[in-house]
Amino acid sequence: MATMKALVYTGPGTVEVLERPKPTIQEPTDAVVRLLHASICGTDLHILKGDVPSAKPGLVLGHEGVGIVEALGSAVRGVEVGSRVLISCMTSCGQCRYCQKGITAHCETGGWTLGNKIDGTQAEYVRVPHATLSLHSLPTSIPSRAAVAVSDAFPTGLECGVLSANVQPGCSVVIIGAGPVGMAALMTARLYTPALIVMVDLDETRLNTARSFGAHATVNSAAPDTLSQLMALTDGHGFDAVIEAVGIPATFALCQELAGIGGRIANVGVHGTKVDLHLEKLWDRNISIHMSLVNATTTPRLIRLVESGLLDIGSLVTHHFPCDEGSKAYETFQAASQHQALKVAIDF
Amino acid sequence: MATMKALVYTGPGTVEVLERPKPTIQEPTDAVVRLLHASICGTDLHILKGDVPSAKPGLVLGHEGVGIVEALGSAVRGVEVGSRVLISCMTSCGQCRYCQKGITAHCETGGWTLGNKIDGTQAEYVRVPHATLSLHSLPTSIPSRAAVAVSDAFPTGLECGVLSANVQPGCSVVIIGAGPVGMAALMTARLYTPALIVMVDLDETRLNTARSFGAHATVNSAAPDTLSQLMALTDGHGFDAVIEAVGIPATFALCQELAGIGGRIANVGVHGTKVDLHLEKLWDRNISIHMSLVNATTTPRLIRLVESGLLDIGSLVTHHFPCDEGSKAYETFQAASQHQALKVAIDF
Amino acid sequence: MATMKALVYTGPGTVEVLERPKPTIQEPTDAVVRLLHASICGTDLHILKGDVPSAKPGLVLGHEGVGIVEALGSAVRGVEVGSRVLISCMTSCGQCRYCQKGITAHCETGGWTLGNKIDGTQAEYVRVPHATLSLHSLPTSIPSRAAVAVSDAFPTGLECGVLSANVQPGCSVVIIGAGPVGMAALMTARLYTPALIVMVDLDETRLNTARSFGAHATVNSAAPDTLSQLMALTDGHGFDAVIEAVGIPATFALCQELAGIGGRIANVGVHGTKVDLHLEKLWDRNISIHMSLVNATTTPRLIRLVESGLLDIGSLVTHHFPCDEGSKAYETFQAASQHQALKVAIDF
Amino acid sequence: MATMKALVYTGPGTVEVLERPKPTIQEPTDAVVRLLHASICGTDLHILKGDVPSAKPGLVLGHEGVGIVEALGSAVRGVEVGSRVLISCMTSCGQCRYCQKGITAHCETGGWTLGNKIDGTQAEYVRVPHATLSLHSLPTSIPSRAAVAVSDAFPTGLECGVLSANVQPGCSVVIIGAGPVGMAALMTARLYTPALIVMVDLDETRLNTARSFGAHATVNSAAPDTLSQLMALTDGHGFDAVIEAVGIPATFALCQELAGIGGRIANVGVHGTKVDLHLEKLWDRNISIHMSLVNATTTPRLIRLVESGLLDIGSLVTHHFPCDEGSKAYETFQAASQHQALKVAIDF
Repeated sequence: MATMKALVYTGPGTVEVLERPKPTIQEPTDAVVRLLHASICGTDLHILKGDVPSAKPGLVLGHEGVGIVEALGSAVRGVEVGSRVLISCMTSCGQCRYCQKGITAHCETGGWTLGNKIDGTQAEYVRVPHATLSLHSLPTSIPSRAAVAVSDAFPTGLECGVLSANVQPGCSVVIIGAGPVGMAALMTARLYTPALIVMVDLDETRLNTARSFGAHATVNSAAPDTLSQLMALTDGHGFDAVIEAVGIPATFALCQELAGIGGRIANVGVHGTKVDLHLEKLWDRNISIHMSLVNATTTPRLIRLVESGLLDIGSLVTHHFPCDEGSKAYETFQAASQHQALKVAIDF
Repeated sequence: MATMKALVYTGPGTVEVLERPKPTIQEPTDAVVRLLHASICGTDLHILKGDVPSAKPGLVLGHEGVGIVEALGSAVRGVEVGSRVLISCMTSCGQCRYCQKGITAHCETGGWTLGNKIDGTQAEYVRVPHATLSLHSLPTSIPSRAAVAVSDAFPTGLECGVLSANVQPGCSVVIIGAGPVGMAALMTARLYTPALIVMVDLDETRLNTARSFGAHATVNSAAPDTLSQLMALTDGHGFDAVIEAVGIPATFALCQELAGIGGRIANVGVHGTKVDLHLEKLWDRNISIHMSLVNATTTPRLIRLVESGLLDIGSLVTHHFPCDEGSKAYETFQAASQHQALKVAIDF
Repeated sequence: MATMKALVYTGPGTVEVLERPKPTIQEPTDAVVRLLHASICGTDLHILKGDVPSAKPGLVLGHEGVGIVEALGSAVRGVEVGSRVLISCMTSCGQCRYCQKGITAHCETGGWTLGNKIDGTQAEYVRVPHATLSLHSLPTSIPSRAAVAVSDAFPTGLECGVLSANVQPGCSVVIIGAGPVGMAALMTARLYTPALIVMVDLDETRLNTARSFGAHATVNSAAPDTLSQLMALTDGHGFDAVIEAVGIPATFALCQELAGIGGRIANVGVHGTKVDLHLEKLWDRNISIHMSLVNATTTPRLIRLVESGLLDIGSLVTHHFPCDEGSKAYETFQAASQHQALKVAIDF
Repeated sequence: MATMKALVYTGPGTVEVLERPKPTIQEPTDAVVRLLHASICGTDLHILKGDVPSAKPGLVLGHEGVGIVEALGSAVRGVEVGSRVLISCMTSCGQCRYCQKGITAHCETGGWTLGNKIDGTQAEYVRVPHATLSLHSLPTSIPSRAAVAVSDAFPTGLECGVLSANVQPGCSVVIIGAGPVGMAALMTARLYTPALIVMVDLDETRLNTARSFGAHATVNSAAPDTLSQLMALTDGHGFDAVIEAVGIPATFALCQELAGIGGRIANVGVHGTKVDLHLEKLWDRNISIHMSLVNATTTPRLIRLVESGLLDIGSLVTHHFPCDEGSKAYETFQAASQHQALKVAIDF
């Protein structure tokens, strides 16, 4: 039996490079992809912490990657053996009740499966179910390693952040959290030309990077007057669009204070605990809160924008490691701020 | 100086029928209306409890009413002296930044003013600012006393409940709270023909009434298995549209459990305290929460539907009292359940 | 080889009951359905006239029907052998660029195929491609013969008529053409509770039927003052929603005169010739025109509404014939007005 | 009586600089503005041709301009005497049935009044009705002469073109006509970051300018293969968004051929004659056509974008003349192509 190298979650806190059987086609809707690059997501760290019950020790990690189609089931359409493809973080059938509503994140036979319920992308090969909708051919102009940020970070920033918050030309936007997804929200918010985008984070290096990515202003949330600084940027009216990209009670609390009348709060962060919702203050302010897992239905549009030179994804992957140094890749991503890292890729 | 009788908030817990100066036109955009009927709203009770800082003792209560135009400022359009008019619970200019966005509830010179910041409708006469948009001529086919429910309860049920929750033909709806606004949400939800409307309350009499108003099912929230009863009605999928019409943490908590994937929670209740938001469960369920004060921009549409016989508002006003028995009217509304009361009107 | 009876288009103007090979599964996504009832659509008559180049002599006609699943390809989900199913007029894969946009009518490997590009439903058996999305299980409460109207007429009336015209509670609607699809538009418009629905036709019997289906008013378009009668019903403002369900220049011309400022014209009729668009009158009236082939994505919702008793489809199928009298069924439908026929079904 | 200089339409084909009485406040909602700059619109030329029945000889022309508030009625809010203001091409009350629907272009007491039903902006002073909504304070960073393009051209390009055609990130856009409004559509389309914007015109100079304004490609419509060149740019699929900015049958015919399945045609051109609508080809292509007069409700947003440096309006006004050379200004605009002119301003 053919084997391959893979980054395996072997128990709380540990990821190891192990030999594993090379995957094969199991359903006519499957593809097997030979990875060129995979990348690490914040949810991979949640798995390492043991926070994701569906992810059991022995699992190959990863739901982000770019590779070459190695084998195809008979029912797969739109890609060929040999195609260079982006692997979507969500697999979806296109036909179940949720897919028909456009909520492919909750596909009855898909959703977040790779690197969660089945072996994932941080390996030399991966089996991708529902490959017709879960693989996207990459135009030659888009470099493979940069493209891994389009598996998850960019569609999440756009769908769960920008679209949920209804960013529109001329509006004001604040993004709390300058990690990879917050940065992707910033870059995709600019597709709609808001008049003001403010990025908030504790890390000055990331705030500098945010300005280079097009933030009009930044505020360090370590400052004692973060709230008043932010409100002053909107002449006290509050923001039209508020994007939470951290996932802790303190940042969600700040969002509630920042939303102006008629504003929208889009939650992007993964939360592990309940938060306070100040309905006694918000009930009459005509504000809405949107919580969502990415459907990744905007991926074809994002690829088109990258190909047209209108969205620069190049800077989000800051570090990369060969497969054998997979553990080091995880260590770097876990201490991202110290390494001035955004996304970390693994090369195969 | 001409005087009139009025129901006056004279301090925490007390409302008295007093002689007050008859109001006059102060701005060219004002109207003075001679009341035929006014009605009491849940927020009037909040004022009595001292919960509304903008409402000071000495205030004439009330933001709901129907009457005859007595005098008009020079800039008022659309009504005549002598017109029988519905008084909207919201006054709005149509021209400020919020009115231009359609959020007239937050009109910079209007919003909830009557019976809050200025004297209200529970009097023989009331001065109505921004009368062009705040008064609506009533067709002769609509009885005056029934129409008071269109000042606030019906637009609130429709806008803050049904429209915020995006009720659509064939969807499933649950409404928590069978008070006047919950009932108005039920009746206006039916305008969109959902396949399932379930009403939840503690009061069996109100649940019976809800069934007579068109609820397909009712569940008594005193039952130990309320949640499982409700989920069973949707085959375990949860509801598409969840409307909170009570305003306490327990009911808002129930709403979070009832929303299906992709569902919408519309808050209609007035909340006096913060609540728990279970982001750790909801973050990935593609659910949104909508909190709003009524804009009353649907009032012309509601009047048209009542006139066409397509919306039966007749049953919402269950009790009425002459002006001199104003205190008794309040007592009845405060113990609504005991009196099998929904809305209580005061006749002038 | 097993054979079956089928209604075959054998050349311009002729339909014959012939023996044809019984269809079999060809793709894993196929189903074979044994028909209980099929029905005739206006587009079938277009085929008989030779107007549809993709439909060649020898074709089994029909894209509407209800039956029992006889055989299933391995990839079909959601139905079982033996399930009683509605066959959608559109077949769709759910995965191509158009399906992903929700325009399943233009599915790259589907769309209007049955009874057009491949053999259709007016036969004892039919092979249905893309069966997962093209078949819908029928609840036992819905009678089979009535249900054939949900294959095409009801989703077309709802999607191409009511949704395209953005019918909303309290608005005014006019429908030109009281044939089966116009009637379906009327019945599905009522799901949104417009304040006024007016039906226009030349045939008094159909106008009577329209009133029994819920039209608030009817106007006979043979009258010399049709336009002024119609405008009077809107106090001269014109209609919010105008639905064209005939397909000739004269009716489309009338629609342009009936649309009020801000109104929407939804074209449902199949047109064989160009029409005049009076841009010199319409350019500044903030009117839109919507032309569409049905996607049939509302079918699950329609089935739910019928099951809930909120949409009465029972009256649309007025005539039925056994398979052997298929030619007579066509003759009856071709002279529908003379027979007071709406939809005509064929029983197997 | 104080007088002023004004450009007066004195009969078919003639515009003269005449002395006219200086306007005064007539209603409490009026303002009188001292013009700094006015500009000429294509519709002014229609008036000169005698095509606009509401515009009678003796009328002061113009509905575009920037000036200083000279006098204010008592009911005007949001501006002060001395404010530098943009005059909107549309005057609107904010309160009538059409304003309440957001269709301010059809305000019952406003709409296109200036330089049409009442004296306009091409004069030293103008009376502006409904001044609260029809005047907009200009931030100091926006130069007055450039700003005249925001009176009409930019909101028309954005609302009637870009928003009607639903331009979205990653989509394809074609604009027929590179005049001032077509150019404004191009520049405001870019606010939504479409992946492809193609400009079509007969004039190579304008096409060069369009490329400098951000068009990704241009096609000269004098070419015999215009259509095939354009379709090739979309790989034969047709465009998502088609904007007609000329106003003749030939260009509207081209639009019908260019719209892809599911596409939208937005008409911006002023048409003087009916056109052919090829319903026999379009009825099943899920295409919509949108015709509209500008509401100018996006003006505050546009001003904010210009102020933020995100929309460069500077290049649209190419020529300017002192008031006394008003006739020459008109001659230049009438022969715009020959003078390489886009918008022509008159300085006061």
